[in-house]
Amino acid sequence: MALKPDKKDILFLGIDGGGSKCKVVLTDSNMNILGEGIAGPANPVRGIDVATNSIMEATSQALKVAGLGNEDFSRLHVGAGLAGVNVPYYYQLFQKWQHPFAALYLTSDLHAACFGAHQGQDGAVIICGTGSCGLAAVGEQVLEVGGHGFPHGDNGSGAWFGLQLLQTVLRSKDGLTAATLMTELLQQHTGLQDTLALALHFMSASATDYARLAPLVFQAAEQQDELAQQIIVAGAAHINAIAARLMTLKPPAISLIGGLCDKLRPYLAPAVQALLVEASQTPELGAIWYAKSCENAKFSGDIKVKGAV
Amino acid sequence: MALKPDKKDILFLGIDGGGSKCKVVLTDSNMNILGEGIAGPANPVRGIDVATNSIMEATSQALKVAGLGNEDFSRLHVGAGLAGVNVPYYYQLFQKWQHPFAALYLTSDLHAACFGAHQGQDGAVIICGTGSCGLAAVGEQVLEVGGHGFPHGDNGSGAWFGLQLLQTVLRSKDGLTAATLMTELLQQHTGLQDTLALALHFMSASATDYARLAPLVFQAAEQQDELAQQIIVAGAAHINAIAARLMTLKPPAISLIGGLCDKLRPYLAPAVQALLVEASQTPELGAIWYAKSCENAKFSGDIKVKGAV
Repeated sequence: MALKPDKKDILFLGIDGGGSKCKVVLTDSNMNILGEGIAGPANPVRGIDVATNSIMEATSQALKVAGLGNEDFSRLHVGAGLAGVNVPYYYQLFQKWQHPFAALYLTSDLHAACFGAHQGQDGAVIICGTGSCGLAAVGEQVLEVGGHGFPHGDNGSGAWFGLQLLQTVLRSKDGLTAATLMTELLQQHTGLQDTLALALHFMSASATDYARLAPLVFQAAEQQDELAQQIIVAGAAHINAIAARLMTLKPPAISLIGGLCDKLRPYLAPAVQALLVEASQTPELGAIWYAKSCENAKFSGDIKVKGAV
Repeated sequence: MALKPDKKDILFLGIDGGGSKCKVVLTDSNMNILGEGIAGPANPVRGIDVATNSIMEATSQALKVAGLGNEDFSRLHVGAGLAGVNVPYYYQLFQKWQHPFAALYLTSDLHAACFGAHQGQDGAVIICGTGSCGLAAVGEQVLEVGGHGFPHGDNGSGAWFGLQLLQTVLRSKDGLTAATLMTELLQQHTGLQDTLALALHFMSASATDYARLAPLVFQAAEQQDELAQQIIVAGAAHINAIAARLMTLKPPAISLIGGLCDKLRPYLAPAVQALLVEASQTPELGAIWYAKSCENAKFSGDIKVKGAV
């Protein structure tokens, strides 16, 4: 990373901006990595100022690592994959930002992840971490499904698995369903035995809190717990439904991304498993692929973008 | 209600204290109603001061209606059915209250509702409104099941139905499940067409917000919508499970209470339907039945209570 770029080189910056943190990567035009940076949330849902401050902070870090300074902002061709910009209101807010870059190309974090997973080629990604969603990008077509937040969306996600576990344990302790190993595992995990104490403990639980319980479902299922196995079959059905919808665009490959991938993979349909490949690059490098694809399109006159190249 | 009681009569006060309001009823020893009052929440989960202030305010109203004053607090034998006092911590907090009454007998709002529904006799109640839960009281045995809050408990409740509707509509709009009439109904209800706009609209929705959507599920089912019918079958299964558990105590009758009762009744199991009766009295009158049963028990030496009779 000590390779100091020539003053006249074009520089690329890729941003992966989510609800908890913002990661950036700085490269030359051949995508050799010159520096990286990390800062707070860059999701415009939390406020445009919070998001832009996080981006500027992470970018300054990356420039410093590369031996460059803030005077080099204007050399950067930036691709940004940001959670929330699939909402038109937030997209428009971000478009009004008087950024200091040579060019800024905005898309969703999911779209950037897909570009990274398949190095800018056609393909699809399914995220299964705290939340769940999927995107396929094939030729000019982009299809995004799932997500939408918890508990009303994000079916088959870590948060979804955790909620099913808690619901099942409470019903089991009330004698409304069979006994389950998940009860013992949840009681160990929380240090709480009493039904009411458990119910109160999760009274204002977040998606992240629930997602922490997801591994317990798989642990119980490995010990042949039937209720846990039923939850996994139902969760995998949600992820299979996302995959089936994405496959209507005939993507040549699908990457699973997120903490639950390894556990869910064996439960996916054979037709889905046959398309699975490891993601080859990070979402922030994917954001650079996105910027490059926008600039290539611009050279052919398809898209108008702000800033000079 | 202009019947002014004699100064030496024993007076009874029944309290139904929930998360949004507190209703009280004042009676003579024959349960002739002398006055009523209503005030804010009396759920100790919101703070013991909020709860006791609501109780005092509603009680003052009821005394005034009966032509009595605050000097008559000490004549009142009070039964209080309060949401939250099934949690030992809140029960203990309430027990420490230096109340001005002759005696105060605490139980859960659900237990008081059961006493009211069956006029102090053995029986069971199932609540199916915004939340869901059930209680059977047979002889000395009391069994309480379900509840536990939303979204992790309260299965088969109004909030549960509303959440299933939104989840199904979002999946349907994403092409992850079949088309459903519920989509059109939800769009009319919210005035929102767009999937992302709908998802954002419910991002921080409360149990009450979700419960408002429950009637749309039944409306769609009446028009033969299959996905709506599946939700109702699953919801009714939750209520049937509560009933089956309560029936292990062999209650002679079950009352359904709450906004969803009429809609759910036809979907309940025949063995449950055979036991259904209308609730004969309100939960606040039930709280008086509870106070009377405690005092009867006290006369036989079973229970020690605070205050003079």
